[in-house]
Amino acid sequence: MILNIGDNYASSTSGNEFKKQKSPEMDQCIQNCLNCFKICEETLARCFTQIEHKDSSHLALLKSCAEICNTSAKFMMLNSKFHSDVCGVCSKVCIECADSCEALGDASMKECIEACRKCADSCAKMAKLPH
Amino acid sequence: MILNIGDNYASSTSGNEFKKQKSPEMDQCIQNCLNCFKICEETLARCFTQIEHKDSSHLALLKSCAEICNTSAKFMMLNSKFHSDVCGVCSKVCIECADSCEALGDASMKECIEACRKCADSCAKMAKLPH
Amino acid sequence: MILNIGDNYASSTSGNEFKKQKSPEMDQCIQNCLNCFKICEETLARCFTQIEHKDSSHLALLKSCAEICNTSAKFMMLNSKFHSDVCGVCSKVCIECADSCEALGDASMKECIEACRKCADSCAKMAKLPH
Amino acid sequence: MILNIGDNYASSTSGNEFKKQKSPEMDQCIQNCLNCFKICEETLARCFTQIEHKDSSHLALLKSCAEICNTSAKFMMLNSKFHSDVCGVCSKVCIECADSCEALGDASMKECIEACRKCADSCAKMAKLPH
Repeated sequence: MILNIGDNYASSTSGNEFKKQKSPEMDQCIQNCLNCFKICEETLARCFTQIEHKDSSHLALLKSCAEICNTSAKFMMLNSKFHSDVCGVCSKVCIECADSCEALGDASMKECIEACRKCADSCAKMAKLPH
Repeated sequence: MILNIGDNYASSTSGNEFKKQKSPEMDQCIQNCLNCFKICEETLARCFTQIEHKDSSHLALLKSCAEICNTSAKFMMLNSKFHSDVCGVCSKVCIECADSCEALGDASMKECIEACRKCADSCAKMAKLPH
Repeated sequence: MILNIGDNYASSTSGNEFKKQKSPEMDQCIQNCLNCFKICEETLARCFTQIEHKDSSHLALLKSCAEICNTSAKFMMLNSKFHSDVCGVCSKVCIECADSCEALGDASMKECIEACRKCADSCAKMAKLPH
Repeated sequence: MILNIGDNYASSTSGNEFKKQKSPEMDQCIQNCLNCFKICEETLARCFTQIEHKDSSHLALLKSCAEICNTSAKFMMLNSKFHSDVCGVCSKVCIECADSCEALGDASMKECIEACRKCADSCAKMAKLPH
């Protein structure tokens, strides 16, 4: 299958907020966002019960990351032309959340770090696409 | 692996809102909710562009269904003891959304109907578990 | 102005998911939900920084309460017939969140307790209305 | 009361994701976001029932605007240092949503236009603050 991204995105010049076709890259990015949303929510819930992980910055980052991943996914599901702006912010938050998890030096954070890095990468790519 | 659901849920009698262990059934239900959330959001976005699917009840049901699936997933990710209440409502909304999609008699609704039915079934099971 | 709630709600028997008219009680309940959502989110953020309020049950309840208040408000804004189901769950979570805040015996929780009780009351009323 | 915004924001250089003090401007911006979120959700619900307002771009913009206002409010409630990034995107979406509502030339859109413009203005200010 040849994906004609050019045609797809060209339609945005007509002023339509809504675009019909989704690229495989966007589909994958939605999955990465949903996965990161899930892992961050579950990690936050786990941190609530662990004395050693209750650093306020870390808790706030996990919560921010879950929120923006959810929002990012919604903007892509809706095919909103603003998805690239939201993905740009999402990428930034994911990187900082991964760094914060890494700084804890705890094996239990491995899954969260991976989910954040993967989401950050695909969101960064979506942020750079013209819209 | 033997999952001791009894022990897991017994802990709720201690008054803790938060429980540590997640059952495979709950994990599957989270996935079903996330998938139904995604399909309903995408179907709603598609309906925005299709004159023949802009029935107000149908649009509102798709939106309600996406919202409650997202919320349901969050309550399970958090392992909140109220997840069964939210899953109960989610199951109801999913059934009605599936029925509404079915009534359109349109092949493009097949994926949404399946996602809603699957989510409704697993949420109904979560709603019946003691908490 | 005399608001004919009877007529408004009678329309639901026609199978419409969406109802046009909002009662003043529902408008007030939306405001109470939005306010409780805000206060719970801010209280959760504050608890992240306070060692003495980092009980896992309390944090999870504040998060659950913020989520369900937000969802409850959305169902009423959409005028979904399922708003009463969501309001019913919301009322339960708000009561438990208020109790949990009260148990801390801390003056800083006063605003949160009040917002939760007020939201619980109006949601309980919305839950009892026929739909 | 003299609010020392300088000290408040200076703390972000220490790498804390979470800041304790909220400025009156941020408080006002949260209210503007919550109000715009509410009006956009209600306007979207109303558009579902009105044949003449079912333009796909308009529906998608109302939905995007409601989502980003909700997210923006959450980032400020949490006092996340990324609130300025989210507010920046929120401001852009609000302006486009207001323009889209205005283009309809319909008196019923007045409240939504005003809520979007007000939210856009305060979010633009939050986006420019150093963080």
